[in-house]
Amino acid sequence: MKKIGIICKLGRMEPVDLLRVLLPWLRERGYEVSLDQETAETLNMEGFARFQIPLLTDMIIVLGGDGTLLSVARHIGDRNVPILGINLGGLGFITEISRDGIFTALEKVMAGDYEIEERMMLSALVIRHGERFAHFIALNDIVINKGALARITEIEVYVNKSYITTYKADGLIISTPTGSTAYSLAAGGPILYPSLNSIILTPICPHTLTNRPLVLPDDMVVETILKSESEDVFLTLDGQVGFALNKNDMVEIRKAECRTRLIIPPGRDYFKILRTKLKWGER
Amino acid sequence: MKKIGIICKLGRMEPVDLLRVLLPWLRERGYEVSLDQETAETLNMEGFARFQIPLLTDMIIVLGGDGTLLSVARHIGDRNVPILGINLGGLGFITEISRDGIFTALEKVMAGDYEIEERMMLSALVIRHGERFAHFIALNDIVINKGALARITEIEVYVNKSYITTYKADGLIISTPTGSTAYSLAAGGPILYPSLNSIILTPICPHTLTNRPLVLPDDMVVETILKSESEDVFLTLDGQVGFALNKNDMVEIRKAECRTRLIIPPGRDYFKILRTKLKWGER
Amino acid sequence: MKKIGIICKLGRMEPVDLLRVLLPWLRERGYEVSLDQETAETLNMEGFARFQIPLLTDMIIVLGGDGTLLSVARHIGDRNVPILGINLGGLGFITEISRDGIFTALEKVMAGDYEIEERMMLSALVIRHGERFAHFIALNDIVINKGALARITEIEVYVNKSYITTYKADGLIISTPTGSTAYSLAAGGPILYPSLNSIILTPICPHTLTNRPLVLPDDMVVETILKSESEDVFLTLDGQVGFALNKNDMVEIRKAECRTRLIIPPGRDYFKILRTKLKWGER
Amino acid sequence: MKKIGIICKLGRMEPVDLLRVLLPWLRERGYEVSLDQETAETLNMEGFARFQIPLLTDMIIVLGGDGTLLSVARHIGDRNVPILGINLGGLGFITEISRDGIFTALEKVMAGDYEIEERMMLSALVIRHGERFAHFIALNDIVINKGALARITEIEVYVNKSYITTYKADGLIISTPTGSTAYSLAAGGPILYPSLNSIILTPICPHTLTNRPLVLPDDMVVETILKSESEDVFLTLDGQVGFALNKNDMVEIRKAECRTRLIIPPGRDYFKILRTKLKWGER
Repeated sequence: MKKIGIICKLGRMEPVDLLRVLLPWLRERGYEVSLDQETAETLNMEGFARFQIPLLTDMIIVLGGDGTLLSVARHIGDRNVPILGINLGGLGFITEISRDGIFTALEKVMAGDYEIEERMMLSALVIRHGERFAHFIALNDIVINKGALARITEIEVYVNKSYITTYKADGLIISTPTGSTAYSLAAGGPILYPSLNSIILTPICPHTLTNRPLVLPDDMVVETILKSESEDVFLTLDGQVGFALNKNDMVEIRKAECRTRLIIPPGRDYFKILRTKLKWGER
Repeated sequence: MKKIGIICKLGRMEPVDLLRVLLPWLRERGYEVSLDQETAETLNMEGFARFQIPLLTDMIIVLGGDGTLLSVARHIGDRNVPILGINLGGLGFITEISRDGIFTALEKVMAGDYEIEERMMLSALVIRHGERFAHFIALNDIVINKGALARITEIEVYVNKSYITTYKADGLIISTPTGSTAYSLAAGGPILYPSLNSIILTPICPHTLTNRPLVLPDDMVVETILKSESEDVFLTLDGQVGFALNKNDMVEIRKAECRTRLIIPPGRDYFKILRTKLKWGER
Repeated sequence: MKKIGIICKLGRMEPVDLLRVLLPWLRERGYEVSLDQETAETLNMEGFARFQIPLLTDMIIVLGGDGTLLSVARHIGDRNVPILGINLGGLGFITEISRDGIFTALEKVMAGDYEIEERMMLSALVIRHGERFAHFIALNDIVINKGALARITEIEVYVNKSYITTYKADGLIISTPTGSTAYSLAAGGPILYPSLNSIILTPICPHTLTNRPLVLPDDMVVETILKSESEDVFLTLDGQVGFALNKNDMVEIRKAECRTRLIIPPGRDYFKILRTKLKWGER
Repeated sequence: MKKIGIICKLGRMEPVDLLRVLLPWLRERGYEVSLDQETAETLNMEGFARFQIPLLTDMIIVLGGDGTLLSVARHIGDRNVPILGINLGGLGFITEISRDGIFTALEKVMAGDYEIEERMMLSALVIRHGERFAHFIALNDIVINKGALARITEIEVYVNKSYITTYKADGLIISTPTGSTAYSLAAGGPILYPSLNSIILTPICPHTLTNRPLVLPDDMVVETILKSESEDVFLTLDGQVGFALNKNDMVEIRKAECRTRLIIPPGRDYFKILRTKLKWGER
């Protein structure tokens, strides 16, 4: 891994300050670095569009938080480039290395002392009038969500062509295990260990109070059909990219063929992250 | 009560069909009837704007469902006209009389054999740049809600000028006891007996999992300040009327001075409505 | 208030250590102090049974935590003696004064600079074979709970003689607003501002998933009838006193005639307690 | 499958009435039937202890409900005998065939037109003072639960030797996917598709409100240590068998080596069972 990409959270000074130390440190050790355009400009350097960086590098360092990492993961898609996530604002669920730990972590990675944790992604195919209309991938979740002024949405759901139910709700979250600690958790979903092969269906404020979160094997295919009149219903990917849905649009959601590859420090303890982020207290 | 207003759910034939029987029945008994404009047109009659009807009548019959009744209640405001709610689609939480029961119910009402149940309403005053900007009332709830594409909202909340917390959530429902079986219930709120003097604060998908629904005395004043950047955050009244909020808008919510007056059949059993609507089963 | 009772948490040294400073401090200022027997013995002094102390004093200081205060409140019953709660282990929901704040608080109380906050209590009358069999009061909650090995309980519930439902659950919590932050909260109940005049019914792990917490006016009377075979179902008061229930036992629960009178420091902020105990975070 | 065992729900007449028809029907077709002792006695026949029946038969018919099937599954253990579950009281989650469907189902089974669905079971090893003290298996769940009068339990939990948290709660449910629609659901857990390879940890009324249900891969080993004083804490298997736990008892829970083999009618639709049992409504 001699070619390193670095992608930073936008509009913040912390990544830029860190880069003034990190870039020379990496170059001294013989690494070739590609920066994202916006950050490069701040440093009067040349940079690359975010989607290009996975094509040019063997490994990407994310400086920011979970949000930046999610966006990078979608850009990587099936390019298989592993990500090292540095959280500049504290601890993240998926950017597990803190500002203070960056050089120690990098030394370990360079010495080959690390693990790759593969995280399942989801693929969403929007079918409109019977035609493939749009395709997306996501690392955390694919959400069908109504706008603030829209009336309740009705979402008919099939799993492997079997009818499940018609959710009457604010929306429906289809989440990976990685996404189980994000929006799905706020909507009442369970926490899934990240290596599980599962898809979670968590309705958002369902009117049928017995519509509880449902966990499915990841080889099942979920089809949703928007049944309610829609001027204001959207498909969102990781809470970051939105796509307007029409009535009767079908969205076919399944495990993506690509996976996100996270570089994990050896001996990392997932439960410690849960304890810290969810304030479970220590012994 | 000799002057009766009738307001119907829009775009449905059931109310119109019923009116062909109900109008002669009322006129025979000496009642003067004012119809809402849209329904009157369907019958080639003269009608009135919905907001005018409370000014012209002693009692309003709602033919439709809970949604129609909520809208009528806001139109009545402080006019004190009582409402008789007929649910043409089944049982409602607040339109308790079914299609079959209408003539029996009306005979009782005409014989004076009924009760008036007063339901608390909420008032919302929007303050922008320190000035009173808009004012609303609601019977069920006042909701601050983000759009599908907006990031999480941050809503700073004070009660009687004491800081409570800053909700990081999809939104916040401020509900009356009447509204406790509507959106608040779907968001995880408790059921409040309708005569209670309380205001319920139910956050929608809060990221702080310990932000549980909070029930306050109805003489407390709730102030919310929208702290997050907002291009897509709305105040909605009973889920029907929307108003775009700006960052730093303050909304002051308190018990309204007016109350909704529901005409209730004698011996009506609120718990039976709960059992039926929530499918609690019978003995 | 010249006669002060002091009741301490059992089996701990912190109260005893504090008393070595507090007793001389109170006597210097002319107060007559009655200690509970167990604590008095540790100090080689003469003490009184806990139930006697309210008969001998004008005010009771509780040194311990919420648990000790609950037990003292039940002992006081209708004696009207106010309680000053000192929490030796941190912050409590009802013992709001910390170890460090005790002398400042006492000086204010002695100067008359305090408020009395009255908290509603519940009364439970057990009726067996049609006869009054036992009577209890509680400050937090009255719970009907099955043992670990018992099958699911069936509890038929009436409110003001109207049938509500038959809970099939681990049990049922009937809580005051004060108790809303205790067991009821853990079972999914809402938080009620302590001055509210309400009774909360929170089922424990109900099999009917739509059996949501229900908040009632405090002038309503709740009757429960245990319908399931019971060798292991108990009525518990504030989680501290237990009473074995038989099949068909009826428990009539209503607002108690007595109230607990808490001595509250001026300017106390209930929401700050919530924020701290529930880790809602600060601005 | 020529040797059929039949095990019936105790103390009910429905199974006995059905047997008067079913036994001749099976014998006509050349099947050898072994009945459980209690039911056999009612019919003046010879029967066998329940634990013996799996040793004598190729297939077991359960006449009763989910409870009877759970108990039979534990008796079968690693004997691999498949179960056909007939629910005499309606629809069960795991006894999917109704009284009316029994002969049709049996004809299909005899014609080889059926599927075997393997359901994961859990194994619990109780370690006391460092020694293996007791061992159990369960199909639905293994629960650590306090009695009605016990104070809150503290349960320290490790997964693959990593510390998770110390639950302060009424108890902890460790459930299979099959058990996800039983006690775990009532305690707030998610629904897991039955073929998933997962273990669910659902705390019962946890005091730490962020202690949400946790889903783990089924190759992980869960260790619980009871940290609170216990005179009244029990381990229960499928809610049917109880075992008193002492303070510091360790329970090691993992996927059992045996699995329950359910005979499933061809084309059975799991989601239809969910819809019916949870009253999700139809289209």
